Amino acid sequence: MEAFITLTHGAGGRESHDLIESLIVKKVPPLLRHALEGHGLDVLDDGSFIKVGESFIVFSSDSYTVKPVFYPGGNIGELAASGVLNDLVMMGARPVAFLDNIIVEEGFPLKELELIIESLVKVLKENNVSLIGGDFKVMPKGSLDKIVISGFGIGVSQGTPIIDRVQPGDVIIVTNNIAEHGAAIMASQLGMDAENLSLRSDSKPLVKTVLPVIERFRNHIHAARDPTRGGLSSILNEWVKDREVSIIIDESKIPIREDVKTFLEMLGIDPLTVASEGVAVLSVSRDVSSDVTVALKSMGENPQIIGEVVIPEEPAQKGRVLGLTEVGGKRVIKGEALNLPRIC
Amino acid sequence: MEAFITLTHGAGGRESHDLIESLIVKKVPPLLRHALEGHGLDVLDDGSFIKVGESFIVFSSDSYTVKPVFYPGGNIGELAASGVLNDLVMMGARPVAFLDNIIVEEGFPLKELELIIESLVKVLKENNVSLIGGDFKVMPKGSLDKIVISGFGIGVSQGTPIIDRVQPGDVIIVTNNIAEHGAAIMASQLGMDAENLSLRSDSKPLVKTVLPVIERFRNHIHAARDPTRGGLSSILNEWVKDREVSIIIDESKIPIREDVKTFLEMLGIDPLTVASEGVAVLSVSRDVSSDVTVALKSMGENPQIIGEVVIPEEPAQKGRVLGLTEVGGKRVIKGEALNLPRIC
Repeated sequence: MEAFITLTHGAGGRESHDLIESLIVKKVPPLLRHALEGHGLDVLDDGSFIKVGESFIVFSSDSYTVKPVFYPGGNIGELAASGVLNDLVMMGARPVAFLDNIIVEEGFPLKELELIIESLVKVLKENNVSLIGGDFKVMPKGSLDKIVISGFGIGVSQGTPIIDRVQPGDVIIVTNNIAEHGAAIMASQLGMDAENLSLRSDSKPLVKTVLPVIERFRNHIHAARDPTRGGLSSILNEWVKDREVSIIIDESKIPIREDVKTFLEMLGIDPLTVASEGVAVLSVSRDVSSDVTVALKSMGENPQIIGEVVIPEEPAQKGRVLGLTEVGGKRVIKGEALNLPRIC
Repeated sequence: MEAFITLTHGAGGRESHDLIESLIVKKVPPLLRHALEGHGLDVLDDGSFIKVGESFIVFSSDSYTVKPVFYPGGNIGELAASGVLNDLVMMGARPVAFLDNIIVEEGFPLKELELIIESLVKVLKENNVSLIGGDFKVMPKGSLDKIVISGFGIGVSQGTPIIDRVQPGDVIIVTNNIAEHGAAIMASQLGMDAENLSLRSDSKPLVKTVLPVIERFRNHIHAARDPTRGGLSSILNEWVKDREVSIIIDESKIPIREDVKTFLEMLGIDPLTVASEGVAVLSVSRDVSSDVTVALKSMGENPQIIGEVVIPEEPAQKGRVLGLTEVGGKRVIKGEALNLPRIC
């Protein structure tokens, strides 16, 4: 283990998971990794839950450090609300309440803070989610670059929340074009005019479009995640890690806008490692997969079946994500995250 | 309204409350200030709650930005866990689960992070609280001064949670010596050797000592808060704000260690404005007040009755906190917080 924290530790890929595993999870006795008949650190998923009577109460929490604070397609307030609500949706839970912890640097313009909070509240209002608490702190000038927000979401799940466990025979569905959030933030961070490049964050809550589909097909959806930090490759790798299965992806099927692809190619970055903030990845029984895509389309999404979960014949392929190449071969898609900080 | 955020906005006094009221609470439609038959932003208390079946699920969240990260008597990890659990206790809830959102500056020593997390987990373990989730982010060198932690606590209350509403005839009980956390942090921030000065933070969880007393006398306790940011004066003022009552305090009864008092006098600081992190303030029916102090003493606390809630004869005294002076007069104790950042 290295002696100092690096940016890679926070990038959402394998190094992040290894650090969290060794530094946090292992310090907690197994009995205290979950509470009240629920799941917590025992299953590293989008959220955790407890059971109260017959109800499943689901929780998610994330910190947002995105830079710049305002970017094409959104701002840190809208992102914090959408991101936390989406993690509840990925558990199959309907978001009901939110708490916001805001830390601001002394000297931050009040008008900008107001815009950020209005964006956050707007997302909550439009999705009928209550704001029931939070915290507000100010750090002296120079000790924080502008603002960070931690959001805590509370949801209720009808039926057991979705604990990711892909099954052989599942197909992998992506609900919309990938990598748009990450590309827009990268362009902004590089000082490029992302707006003129037509790059915009895809950040949006999935409560109205994806949650109804998850609720309807709940028993056939074996895993659901939003590919934020670490992108699609990171999530697919988590799903097969230490399992007997592998996921095979037809990369030509992955929905991505041409301008996003060109921009990322220019930088030499694999779009599979780049964050989306308004997209879900679902692992679904093959027999309902076309019903699921039809339902997602009717909600205005642009779903694509991009691959499948298989039991590989070659042992070396177990626990791996494989991409079909144009020449009919396979490449290993690794779960290494893009080492670019403050994407979300 | 000023054009920029100042340190006073984050100090926990009246300016903090006014900002939160205008910038956050007012932006949220009244129906979305609470959820599921519970309370949230409609009552600015230590925590919020929802009702699930016959159970009250209580939530609290706070961000910790304390500087230095390690100080005499504790560190930011221990503080985050104790602080969040104490807010649940002040609602009359038994803490069951915790989520930690950690943001670290690139280059932070791994060994120190490990100590911080071990301290946090130790508090949870000793109080039988599960760690069920969280988030871990890294910010580039220079964009964050070391580390901040946001904690999210989940508790269960037997019976309606305590929503602060002091009653005429109540007495005010402080469970232990005040101002020790703030004094220790101030000494450290000023570069003094707090350890040699014998100043130590009082930070500790109140789950084992104060919660059992609150649970036993629940129906007779009309308000309970821990006097952190803003200190005792801030809380007492919140309790009487816009009410017909006033609180009269005998300042000579307030428990405080002599060295803490001397140190703060030296700096010209009123101890009533200084943060404690292991103390509760209770507003209790007079008829059970001696039973409550006996019970608290038996748990190892050092409780003192410091004042009472009255309906004042003079209208000018309504909604005010008054301190009895040594010459038998009264001074107004204002709810203005000490403008010292990163105390907690």
